[in-house]
Amino acid sequence: MTAPFPPPRGRISLVGAGPGAADLLTLRALRTLQSADVVLHDRLITEEVLALIPPSTRRIAVGKEVGANAWPQARIEALMVAQALSGAHVVRLKSGDPAIFARAAEEIAAARAAGLEVQIVPGITAASAASASLGRPLTTRGVAQRLVIATATDEADGALPESLPRGTTLALYMGTRKLEALEAGLLASGAHPATEVSAVCHASQAGERVFTSPLRGMTEAFRAQKGFAAPCVLILTEGVYAAQSSPRSRTGAEWVKAPTEM
Amino acid sequence: MTAPFPPPRGRISLVGAGPGAADLLTLRALRTLQSADVVLHDRLITEEVLALIPPSTRRIAVGKEVGANAWPQARIEALMVAQALSGAHVVRLKSGDPAIFARAAEEIAAARAAGLEVQIVPGITAASAASASLGRPLTTRGVAQRLVIATATDEADGALPESLPRGTTLALYMGTRKLEALEAGLLASGAHPATEVSAVCHASQAGERVFTSPLRGMTEAFRAQKGFAAPCVLILTEGVYAAQSSPRSRTGAEWVKAPTEM
Repeated sequence: MTAPFPPPRGRISLVGAGPGAADLLTLRALRTLQSADVVLHDRLITEEVLALIPPSTRRIAVGKEVGANAWPQARIEALMVAQALSGAHVVRLKSGDPAIFARAAEEIAAARAAGLEVQIVPGITAASAASASLGRPLTTRGVAQRLVIATATDEADGALPESLPRGTTLALYMGTRKLEALEAGLLASGAHPATEVSAVCHASQAGERVFTSPLRGMTEAFRAQKGFAAPCVLILTEGVYAAQSSPRSRTGAEWVKAPTEM
Repeated sequence: MTAPFPPPRGRISLVGAGPGAADLLTLRALRTLQSADVVLHDRLITEEVLALIPPSTRRIAVGKEVGANAWPQARIEALMVAQALSGAHVVRLKSGDPAIFARAAEEIAAARAAGLEVQIVPGITAASAASASLGRPLTTRGVAQRLVIATATDEADGALPESLPRGTTLALYMGTRKLEALEAGLLASGAHPATEVSAVCHASQAGERVFTSPLRGMTEAFRAQKGFAAPCVLILTEGVYAAQSSPRSRTGAEWVKAPTEM
Protein backbone atom coordinates (compact mmCIF):
# COMPACT_ATOMS: atom_id res chain seq x y z
CA MET A 1 0.00 0.00 0.00
CA THR A 2 1.52 3.32 -1.05
CA ALA A 3 0.97 6.66 0.62
CA PRO A 4 -1.33 8.92 -1.40
CA PHE A 5 0.27 11.85 -3.15
CA PRO A 6 -0.40 15.12 -1.38
CA PRO A 7 -2.99 17.17 -3.21
CA PRO A 8 -1.59 19.80 -5.61
CA ARG A 9 -0.85 23.06 -3.85
CA GLY A 10 -2.17 26.23 -5.42
CA ARG A 11 -0.90 29.74 -5.04
CA ILE A 12 -2.23 33.26 -4.62
CA SER A 13 -1.44 36.41 -6.58
CA LEU A 14 -2.54 39.79 -5.27
CA VAL A 15 -2.86 41.71 -8.51
CA GLY A 16 -3.23 45.44 -8.94
CA ALA A 17 -5.84 46.34 -11.54
CA GLY A 18 -4.86 50.02 -11.55
CA PRO A 19 -7.39 52.85 -11.70
CA GLY A 20 -9.89 51.32 -14.10
CA ALA A 21 -8.76 51.68 -17.71
CA ALA A 22 -7.93 48.27 -19.11
CA ASP A 23 -4.71 49.55 -20.67
CA LEU A 24 -3.41 50.73 -17.30
CA LEU A 25 -2.83 47.20 -16.11
CA THR A 26 0.79 46.14 -16.30
CA LEU A 27 1.76 43.43 -18.73
CA ARG A 28 2.51 41.21 -15.71
CA ALA A 29 -0.91 41.85 -14.23
CA LEU A 30 -2.58 40.93 -17.51
CA ARG A 31 -0.53 37.74 -17.87
CA THR A 32 -1.20 36.78 -14.25
CA LEU A 33 -4.90 37.43 -14.65
CA GLN A 34 -5.00 35.28 -17.75
CA SER A 35 -3.25 32.39 -16.00
CA ALA A 36 -5.66 32.35 -13.06
CA ASP A 37 -8.01 29.51 -12.28
CA VAL A 38 -10.18 31.69 -10.08
CA VAL A 39 -10.40 35.49 -9.83
CA LEU A 40 -11.74 37.07 -6.65
CA HIS A 41 -12.30 40.70 -7.54
CA ASP A 42 -13.28 43.85 -5.72
CA ARG A 43 -16.57 45.44 -6.63
CA LEU A 44 -14.85 48.55 -7.91
CA ILE A 45 -13.12 46.66 -10.72
CA THR A 46 -14.40 48.08 -14.00
CA GLU A 47 -16.18 46.14 -16.71
CA GLU A 48 -13.33 46.75 -19.14
CA VAL A 49 -10.85 45.18 -16.74
CA LEU A 50 -13.17 42.25 -16.05
CA ALA A 51 -13.35 41.72 -19.80
CA LEU A 52 -9.64 40.82 -19.74
CA ILE A 53 -10.42 37.67 -17.73
CA PRO A 54 -10.84 34.64 -19.99
CA PRO A 55 -14.51 33.59 -20.17
CA SER A 56 -13.67 30.12 -18.87
CA THR A 57 -12.10 31.48 -15.68
CA ARG A 58 -14.28 31.40 -12.61
CA ARG A 59 -14.79 34.87 -11.21
CA ILE A 60 -16.32 35.91 -7.92
CA ALA A 61 -17.20 39.47 -6.90
CA VAL A 62 -16.12 39.93 -3.31
CA GLY A 63 -15.12 42.96 -1.36
CA LYS A 64 -16.80 45.52 0.70
CA GLU A 65 -19.70 47.64 -0.32
CA VAL A 66 -21.67 49.86 1.95
CA GLY A 67 -24.92 48.19 2.83
CA ALA A 68 -26.11 44.88 1.54
CA ASN A 69 -24.03 42.02 0.21
CA ALA A 70 -20.84 43.05 1.97
CA TRP A 71 -18.24 40.32 2.26
CA PRO A 72 -16.50 40.33 5.64
CA GLN A 73 -12.74 40.29 5.20
CA ALA A 74 -12.50 36.91 6.95
CA ARG A 75 -14.87 35.36 4.41
CA ILE A 76 -12.79 36.66 1.50
CA GLU A 77 -9.66 35.23 3.05
CA ALA A 78 -11.28 31.87 3.78
CA LEU A 79 -12.51 31.52 0.20
CA MET A 80 -9.16 32.61 -1.24
CA VAL A 81 -7.24 30.12 0.91
CA ALA A 82 -9.69 27.27 0.32
CA GLN A 83 -9.48 27.74 -3.45
CA ALA A 84 -5.68 27.80 -3.40
CA LEU A 85 -5.47 24.75 -1.10
CA SER A 86 -7.57 22.86 -3.62
CA GLY A 87 -4.85 23.51 -6.20
CA ALA A 88 -6.04 26.67 -7.92
CA HIS A 89 -3.98 29.67 -8.90
CA VAL A 90 -6.12 32.30 -7.20
CA VAL A 91 -5.88 35.90 -8.38
CA ARG A 92 -7.10 38.41 -5.85
CA LEU A 93 -7.76 41.38 -8.13
CA LYS A 94 -7.74 44.74 -6.43
CA SER A 95 -8.28 48.30 -7.64
CA GLY A 96 -5.10 50.35 -7.80
CA ASP A 97 -2.00 48.89 -6.17
CA PRO A 98 -2.30 45.98 -3.71
CA ALA A 99 0.33 47.67 -1.54
CA ILE A 100 -1.81 50.71 -0.76
CA PHE A 101 -5.07 50.59 1.22
CA ALA A 102 -5.99 47.13 -0.01
CA ARG A 103 -6.01 44.92 3.10
CA ALA A 104 -3.09 43.03 1.58
CA ALA A 105 -1.30 42.33 4.87
CA GLU A 106 -4.28 40.40 6.17
CA GLU A 107 -4.64 38.37 2.99
CA ILE A 108 -0.91 37.64 2.83
CA ALA A 109 -0.95 36.53 6.46
CA ALA A 110 -3.91 34.23 5.79
CA ALA A 111 -2.17 32.71 2.78
CA ARG A 112 1.08 32.14 4.64
CA ALA A 113 -0.69 30.70 7.65
CA ALA A 114 -2.03 28.07 5.25
CA GLY A 115 1.45 27.44 3.84
CA LEU A 116 0.60 28.99 0.50
CA GLU A 117 2.94 31.01 -1.67
CA VAL A 118 1.77 34.50 -2.42
CA GLN A 119 3.04 37.22 -4.71
CA ILE A 120 2.16 40.88 -5.16
CA VAL A 121 1.82 42.16 -8.72
CA PRO A 122 1.93 45.95 -8.46
CA GLY A 123 -0.62 48.28 -9.98
CA ILE A 124 -0.96 51.98 -10.79
CA THR A 125 -2.22 53.63 -7.64
CA ALA A 126 -4.96 56.25 -7.77
CA ALA A 127 -2.64 59.19 -7.06
CA SER A 128 -0.57 58.39 -10.16
CA ALA A 129 -3.70 58.06 -12.25
CA ALA A 130 -5.01 61.37 -10.91
CA SER A 131 -1.75 63.05 -11.83
CA ALA A 132 -2.10 61.84 -15.40
CA SER A 133 -5.69 63.10 -15.47
CA LEU A 134 -4.65 66.50 -14.15
CA GLY A 135 -1.69 66.74 -16.50
CA ARG A 136 0.68 67.68 -13.71
CA PRO A 137 3.00 65.72 -11.47
CA LEU A 138 2.70 64.99 -7.75
CA THR A 139 6.16 66.28 -6.89
CA THR A 140 7.78 69.43 -8.29
CA ARG A 141 11.19 70.83 -7.43
CA GLY A 142 10.89 73.82 -5.14
CA VAL A 143 7.17 73.25 -4.60
CA ALA A 144 6.52 69.71 -3.37
CA GLN A 145 9.41 67.42 -2.43
CA ARG A 146 7.18 64.90 -0.73
CA LEU A 147 4.03 62.92 -1.51
CA VAL A 148 1.75 61.78 1.28
CA ILE A 149 -0.89 59.20 0.43
CA ALA A 150 -3.53 58.90 3.11
CA THR A 151 -7.15 58.04 3.60
CA ALA A 152 -9.94 59.70 5.48
CA THR A 153 -12.33 56.86 6.03
CA ASP A 154 -10.62 54.36 8.24
CA GLU A 155 -11.94 55.56 11.55
CA ALA A 156 -11.59 52.19 13.24
CA ASP A 157 -7.90 52.52 12.57
CA GLY A 158 -7.53 55.67 14.61
CA ALA A 159 -5.94 57.52 11.72
CA LEU A 160 -4.54 60.91 12.58
CA PRO A 161 -6.18 63.98 11.15
CA GLU A 162 -4.25 64.98 8.05
CA SER A 163 -2.23 68.13 7.80
CA LEU A 164 -0.50 69.72 4.82
CA PRO A 165 3.12 70.40 5.74
CA ARG A 166 5.46 72.61 3.78
CA GLY A 167 6.67 71.13 0.54
CA THR A 168 4.06 68.38 0.47
CA THR A 169 1.49 67.07 -1.95
CA LEU A 170 -1.31 65.26 -0.18
CA ALA A 171 -3.31 62.62 -2.00
CA LEU A 172 -6.40 61.65 -0.04
CA TYR A 173 -8.13 58.41 -0.98
CA MET A 174 -11.67 57.46 -0.09
CA GLY A 175 -12.57 60.90 1.17
CA THR A 176 -15.73 61.48 -0.82
CA ARG A 177 -17.99 60.86 2.15
CA LYS A 178 -15.77 62.72 4.60
CA LEU A 179 -15.38 66.07 2.92
CA GLU A 180 -16.63 68.12 5.87
CA ALA A 181 -14.21 66.47 8.27
CA LEU A 182 -11.34 66.78 5.81
CA GLU A 183 -12.04 70.43 5.08
CA ALA A 184 -12.35 71.29 8.76
CA GLY A 185 -9.36 69.21 9.77
CA LEU A 186 -7.04 70.60 7.12
CA LEU A 187 -8.05 74.18 7.88
CA ALA A 188 -7.63 73.56 11.61
CA SER A 189 -4.14 72.16 11.01
CA GLY A 190 -3.15 75.41 9.34
CA ALA A 191 -3.63 74.72 5.64
CA HIS A 192 -4.28 77.95 3.71
CA PRO A 193 -8.01 78.36 2.90
CA ALA A 194 -7.15 79.17 -0.73
CA THR A 195 -5.21 75.94 -1.21
CA GLU A 196 -6.31 74.40 -4.47
CA VAL A 197 -8.04 71.05 -4.09
CA SER A 198 -8.43 68.93 -7.18
CA ALA A 199 -10.86 66.06 -7.01
CA VAL A 200 -10.34 63.41 -9.64
CA CYS A 201 -13.27 61.02 -9.76
CA HIS A 202 -13.20 57.76 -11.71
CA ALA A 203 -9.68 58.55 -12.90
CA SER A 204 -8.84 56.97 -16.26
CA GLN A 205 -12.43 55.74 -16.75
CA ALA A 206 -15.01 56.86 -19.27
CA GLY A 207 -16.81 58.75 -16.52
CA GLU A 208 -13.69 60.56 -15.36
CA ARG A 209 -14.35 64.02 -13.96
CA VAL A 210 -11.98 66.61 -12.55
CA PHE A 211 -13.16 69.28 -10.10
CA THR A 212 -11.20 72.13 -8.57
CA SER A 213 -12.03 74.32 -5.60
CA PRO A 214 -10.30 76.28 -2.89
CA LEU A 215 -10.01 74.22 0.29
CA ARG A 216 -12.42 76.47 2.18
CA GLY A 217 -15.75 75.66 0.64
CA MET A 218 -14.74 72.50 -1.15
CA THR A 219 -17.39 70.37 0.54
CA GLU A 220 -20.25 72.48 -0.74
CA ALA A 221 -18.59 73.13 -4.09
CA PHE A 222 -17.90 69.50 -4.90
CA ARG A 223 -21.24 68.20 -3.64
CA ALA A 224 -23.01 70.68 -5.93
CA GLN A 225 -21.32 69.25 -9.01
CA LYS A 226 -22.83 66.60 -11.22
CA GLY A 227 -20.49 63.66 -11.55
CA PHE A 228 -18.90 64.08 -8.14
CA ALA A 229 -19.17 60.44 -7.08
CA ALA A 230 -16.79 57.94 -5.48
CA PRO A 231 -14.15 56.85 -6.13
CA CYS A 232 -12.47 60.25 -6.07
CA VAL A 233 -8.94 61.21 -5.08
CA LEU A 234 -8.31 64.64 -3.59
CA ILE A 235 -4.97 66.24 -4.47
CA LEU A 236 -3.63 69.24 -2.52
CA THR A 237 -0.20 70.82 -2.69
CA GLU A 238 1.00 73.21 -0.01
CA GLY A 239 1.43 76.67 -1.48
CA VAL A 240 -0.65 76.05 -4.60
CA TYR A 241 -3.73 78.23 -4.48
CA ALA A 242 -6.87 78.02 -6.53
CA ALA A 243 -6.82 80.60 -9.30
CA GLN A 244 -10.46 81.56 -8.74
CA SER A 245 -12.98 81.19 -6.02
CA SER A 246 -15.68 79.41 -7.97
CA PRO A 247 -15.36 75.69 -8.55
CA ARG A 248 -14.50 74.48 -12.00
CA SER A 249 -15.02 71.10 -13.53
CA ARG A 250 -14.26 69.35 -16.73
CA THR A 251 -14.57 65.91 -18.13
CA GLY A 252 -11.39 63.94 -18.53
CA ALA A 253 -9.47 63.97 -21.76
CA GLU A 254 -6.46 61.93 -22.72
CA TRP A 255 -4.68 64.99 -24.08
CA VAL A 256 -4.70 67.75 -21.55
CA LYS A 257 -4.26 71.26 -22.90
CA ALA A 258 -2.55 73.88 -20.82
CA PRO A 259 -4.87 74.45 -17.86
CA THR A 260 -4.84 77.75 -16.05
CA GLU A 261 -3.55 76.20 -12.88
CA MET A 262 -0.20 75.12 -14.30
CA MET B 1 -0.19 82.08 -54.50
CA THR B 2 -1.45 80.05 -51.58
CA ALA B 3 -0.31 80.27 -48.03
CA PRO B 4 1.86 77.31 -47.08
CA PHE B 5 0.34 74.76 -44.77
CA PRO B 6 1.66 75.03 -41.24
CA PRO B 7 4.14 72.28 -40.48
CA PRO B 8 2.66 69.23 -38.75
CA ARG B 9 2.60 69.63 -35.01
CA GLY B 10 3.98 66.80 -32.93
CA ARG B 11 3.19 65.89 -29.37
CA ILE B 12 4.92 64.72 -26.24
CA SER B 13 4.19 61.77 -23.99
CA LEU B 14 5.84 61.49 -20.59
CA VAL B 15 5.82 57.74 -20.13
CA GLY B 16 6.54 55.81 -16.94
CA ALA B 17 8.77 52.82 -17.54
CA GLY B 18 8.21 51.45 -14.06
CA PRO B 19 10.95 49.91 -11.92
CA GLY B 20 12.85 48.07 -14.63
CA ALA B 21 11.21 44.75 -15.49
CA ALA B 22 9.79 44.92 -18.99
CA ASP B 23 6.51 43.33 -17.90
CA LEU B 24 5.92 46.06 -15.32
CA LEU B 25 5.14 48.63 -18.00
CA THR B 26 1.46 49.25 -18.44
CA LEU B 27 -0.18 48.24 -21.69
CA ARG B 28 -0.67 51.95 -22.44
CA ALA B 29 2.99 52.68 -21.86
CA LEU B 30 3.99 49.89 -24.21
CA ARG B 31 1.58 51.05 -26.91
CA THR B 32 2.73 54.65 -26.54
CA LEU B 33 6.37 53.65 -26.70
CA GLN B 34 5.72 51.67 -29.83
CA SER B 35 3.98 54.59 -31.52
CA ALA B 36 6.83 57.02 -30.83
CA ASP B 37 8.95 58.61 -33.51
CA VAL B 38 11.67 59.51 -31.03
CA VAL B 39 12.34 58.21 -27.53
CA LEU B 40 14.34 60.32 -25.10
CA HIS B 41 15.13 58.01 -22.23
CA ASP B 42 16.75 58.30 -18.84
CA ARG B 43 19.99 56.47 -18.28
CA LEU B 44 18.42 54.25 -15.63
CA ILE B 45 16.06 52.64 -18.14
CA THR B 46 16.94 48.95 -18.28
CA GLU B 47 18.03 47.06 -21.38
CA GLU B 48 14.91 44.91 -21.26
CA VAL B 49 12.69 47.98 -21.39
CA LEU B 50 14.75 49.55 -24.17
CA ALA B 51 14.27 46.32 -26.10
CA LEU B 52 10.54 47.14 -26.30
CA ILE B 53 11.29 50.13 -28.53
CA PRO B 54 11.01 49.22 -32.22
CA PRO B 55 14.46 49.09 -33.85
CA SER B 56 13.47 51.74 -36.39
CA THR B 57 12.61 54.28 -33.68
CA ARG B 58 15.26 56.86 -32.92
CA ARG B 59 16.35 56.70 -29.30
CA ILE B 60 18.50 59.13 -27.39
CA ALA B 61 19.91 58.54 -23.90
CA VAL B 62 19.48 61.75 -21.96
CA GLY B 63 19.16 62.42 -18.30
CA LYS B 64 21.42 63.08 -15.46
CA GLU B 65 24.34 60.99 -14.39
CA VAL B 66 26.88 61.98 -11.82
CA GLY B 67 30.03 63.10 -13.54
CA ALA B 68 30.63 63.12 -17.26
CA ASN B 69 28.03 63.25 -20.01
CA ALA B 70 25.32 64.78 -17.87
CA TRP B 71 22.53 66.45 -19.81
CA PRO B 72 21.37 69.70 -18.25
CA GLN B 73 17.61 69.73 -17.83
CA ALA B 74 17.29 72.69 -20.21
CA ARG B 75 19.04 70.74 -22.97
CA ILE B 76 16.68 67.80 -22.54
CA GLU B 77 13.69 70.12 -22.75
CA ALA B 78 15.04 71.94 -25.80
CA LEU B 79 15.62 68.69 -27.67
CA MET B 80 12.22 67.32 -26.67
CA VAL B 81 10.41 70.45 -27.82
CA ALA B 82 12.41 70.79 -31.05
CA GLN B 83 11.64 67.20 -32.01
CA ALA B 84 7.93 67.63 -31.34
CA LEU B 85 7.78 70.96 -33.18
CA SER B 86 9.21 69.20 -36.20
CA GLY B 87 6.20 66.89 -36.15
CA ALA B 88 7.42 63.93 -34.13
CA HIS B 89 5.57 62.06 -31.41
CA VAL B 90 8.23 62.32 -28.73
CA VAL B 91 8.18 59.85 -25.87
CA ARG B 92 10.07 61.01 -22.81
CA LEU B 93 10.66 57.68 -21.09
CA LYS B 94 11.29 57.89 -17.37
CA SER B 95 12.00 55.32 -14.69
CA GLY B 96 9.09 54.69 -12.35
CA ASP B 97 6.16 57.10 -12.56
CA PRO B 98 6.52 60.48 -14.34
CA ALA B 99 4.49 62.05 -11.53
CA ILE B 100 7.05 61.31 -8.81
CA PHE B 101 10.55 62.83 -8.70
CA ALA B 102 10.88 62.98 -12.47
CA ARG B 103 11.16 66.69 -13.30
CA ALA B 104 7.86 66.38 -15.13
CA ALA B 105 6.58 69.84 -14.23
CA GLU B 106 9.50 71.50 -15.98
CA GLU B 107 9.10 69.36 -19.09
CA ILE B 108 5.34 69.91 -19.21
CA ALA B 109 5.85 73.65 -18.85
CA ALA B 110 8.40 73.64 -21.69
CA ALA B 111 6.04 71.70 -23.91
CA ARG B 112 3.08 73.97 -23.21
CA ALA B 113 5.17 77.11 -23.68
CA ALA B 114 5.80 75.81 -27.19
CA GLY B 115 2.09 75.16 -27.72
CA LEU B 116 2.53 71.40 -27.71
CA GLU B 117 0.11 68.88 -26.32
CA VAL B 118 1.51 66.67 -23.60
CA GLN B 119 0.19 63.63 -21.79
CA ILE B 120 1.37 61.65 -18.79
CA VAL B 121 1.27 57.87 -19.03
CA PRO B 122 1.61 56.60 -15.47
CA GLY B 123 4.11 54.01 -14.33
CA ILE B 124 4.71 51.77 -11.32
CA THR B 125 6.64 53.83 -8.82
CA ALA B 126 9.60 52.38 -6.93
CA ALA B 127 7.74 52.11 -3.62
CA SER B 128 5.11 49.83 -5.18
CA ALA B 129 7.82 47.71 -6.79
CA ALA B 130 9.69 47.47 -3.48
CA SER B 131 6.51 46.32 -1.77
CA ALA B 132 6.14 43.52 -4.28
CA SER B 133 9.79 42.57 -3.73
CA LEU B 134 9.36 42.52 0.03
CA GLY B 135 6.11 40.61 -0.17
CA ARG B 136 4.34 43.02 2.13
CA PRO B 137 2.22 46.10 1.59
CA LEU B 138 3.03 49.75 2.27
CA THR B 139 -0.08 50.38 4.34
CA THR B 140 -1.55 48.06 6.94
CA ARG B 141 -4.61 48.63 9.10
CA GLY B 142 -3.63 49.51 12.63
CA VAL B 143 0.06 49.83 11.72
CA ALA B 144 0.52 52.29 8.85
CA GLN B 145 -2.41 54.36 7.61
CA ARG B 146 -0.23 56.67 5.57
CA LEU B 147 2.53 56.40 2.97
CA VAL B 148 5.10 59.16 2.63
CA ILE B 149 7.26 59.12 -0.49
CA ALA B 150 10.26 61.41 -0.19
CA THR B 151 13.80 61.78 -1.37
CA ALA B 152 17.02 62.56 0.41
CA THR B 153 19.16 63.90 -2.38
CA ASP B 154 17.59 67.12 -3.53
CA GLU B 155 19.55 69.51 -1.34
CA ALA B 156 19.13 72.43 -3.70
CA ASP B 157 15.43 72.07 -3.12
CA GLY B 158 15.69 72.72 0.60
CA ALA B 159 13.87 69.51 1.42
CA LEU B 160 12.97 69.12 5.05
CA PRO B 161 14.70 66.42 7.06
CA GLU B 162 12.41 63.42 7.13
CA SER B 163 10.72 62.13 10.24
CA LEU B 164 8.73 58.98 10.83
CA PRO B 165 5.41 59.94 12.38
CA ARG B 166 3.04 57.52 14.03
CA GLY B 167 1.17 55.29 11.66
CA THR B 168 3.40 56.04 8.70
CA THR B 169 5.39 54.08 6.17
CA LEU B 170 8.22 56.12 4.74
CA ALA B 171 9.61 55.28 1.31
CA LEU B 172 12.85 57.13 0.65
CA TYR B 173 14.05 57.37 -2.93
CA MET B 174 17.57 58.20 -4.03
CA GLY B 175 19.02 57.86 -0.55
CA THR B 176 21.87 55.49 -1.32
CA ARG B 177 24.52 58.19 -1.13
CA LYS B 178 22.93 59.94 1.85
CA LEU B 179 22.63 57.12 4.33
CA GLU B 180 24.56 58.84 7.12
CA ALA B 181 22.40 61.96 6.91
CA LEU B 182 19.21 59.90 6.73
CA GLU B 183 20.18 57.71 9.68
CA ALA B 184 21.18 60.69 11.80
CA GLY B 185 18.18 62.77 10.78
CA LEU B 186 15.62 60.04 11.42
CA LEU B 187 17.14 59.21 14.80
CA ALA B 188 17.26 62.90 15.71
CA SER B 189 13.59 63.29 14.77
CA GLY B 190 12.68 60.57 17.27
CA ALA B 191 12.50 57.41 15.18
CA HIS B 192 13.17 54.31 17.28
CA PRO B 193 16.74 53.00 16.75
CA ALA B 194 15.41 49.45 16.25
CA THR B 195 13.06 50.51 13.44
CA GLU B 196 13.43 48.02 10.62
CA VAL B 197 14.83 49.53 7.43
CA SER B 198 14.47 47.50 4.27
CA ALA B 199 16.57 48.54 1.31
CA VAL B 200 15.33 47.24 -2.01
CA CYS B 201 17.93 47.78 -4.72
CA HIS B 202 17.19 47.30 -8.41
CA ALA B 203 13.63 46.27 -7.57
CA SER B 204 12.09 43.93 -10.13
CA GLN B 205 15.38 43.59 -12.03
CA ALA B 206 17.65 40.57 -12.38
CA GLY B 207 20.07 42.15 -9.92
CA GLU B 208 17.39 42.82 -7.32
CA ARG B 209 18.65 42.63 -3.74
CA VAL B 210 16.83 43.17 -0.46
CA PHE B 211 18.68 44.20 2.70
CA THR B 212 17.33 44.69 6.19
CA SER B 213 18.86 46.43 9.18
CA PRO B 214 17.82 48.30 12.29
CA LEU B 215 17.82 52.05 11.66
CA ARG B 216 20.73 52.61 14.02
CA GLY B 217 23.68 51.18 12.17
CA MET B 218 22.03 50.91 8.76
CA THR B 219 24.67 53.01 7.03
CA GLU B 220 27.51 50.70 8.01
CA ALA B 221 25.41 47.57 7.61
CA PHE B 222 24.20 48.35 4.08
CA ARG B 223 27.53 49.66 2.83
CA ALA B 224 29.18 46.39 3.94
CA GLN B 225 26.85 44.34 1.74
CA LYS B 226 27.69 43.22 -1.78
CA GLY B 227 25.03 44.34 -4.20
CA PHE B 228 24.04 47.45 -2.25
CA ALA B 229 24.11 49.85 -5.19
CA ALA B 230 21.75 52.54 -6.47
CA PRO B 231 18.94 52.65 -7.28
CA CYS B 232 17.65 51.53 -3.88
CA VAL B 233 14.46 52.44 -2.05
CA LEU B 234 14.47 52.48 1.74
CA ILE B 235 11.23 51.41 3.42
CA LEU B 236 10.56 52.13 7.10
CA THR B 237 7.34 51.72 9.04
CA GLU B 238 6.87 53.35 12.41
CA GLY B 239 6.59 50.69 15.08
CA VAL B 240 8.04 47.87 12.99
CA TYR B 241 11.32 46.78 14.52
CA ALA B 242 14.06 44.68 13.03
CA ALA B 243 13.85 41.12 14.34
CA GLN B 244 17.59 40.85 14.83
CA SER B 245 20.49 43.24 15.09
CA SER B 246 22.61 41.85 12.27
CA PRO B 247 21.80 42.84 8.70
CA ARG B 248 20.24 40.27 6.44
CA SER B 249 20.15 40.16 2.69
CA ARG B 250 18.68 38.01 0.00
CA THR B 251 18.35 38.06 -3.72
CA GLY B 252 14.96 38.78 -5.15
CA ALA B 253 12.55 36.04 -6.01
CA GLU B 254 9.19 36.32 -7.69
CA TRP B 255 7.57 34.06 -5.16
CA VAL B 256 8.32 35.25 -1.68
CA LYS B 257 8.01 32.61 1.03
CA ALA B 258 6.94 33.64 4.50
CA PRO B 259 9.77 35.87 5.74
CA THR B 260 10.40 36.25 9.44
CA GLU B 261 9.58 39.93 9.33
CA MET B 262 5.89 39.44 8.49
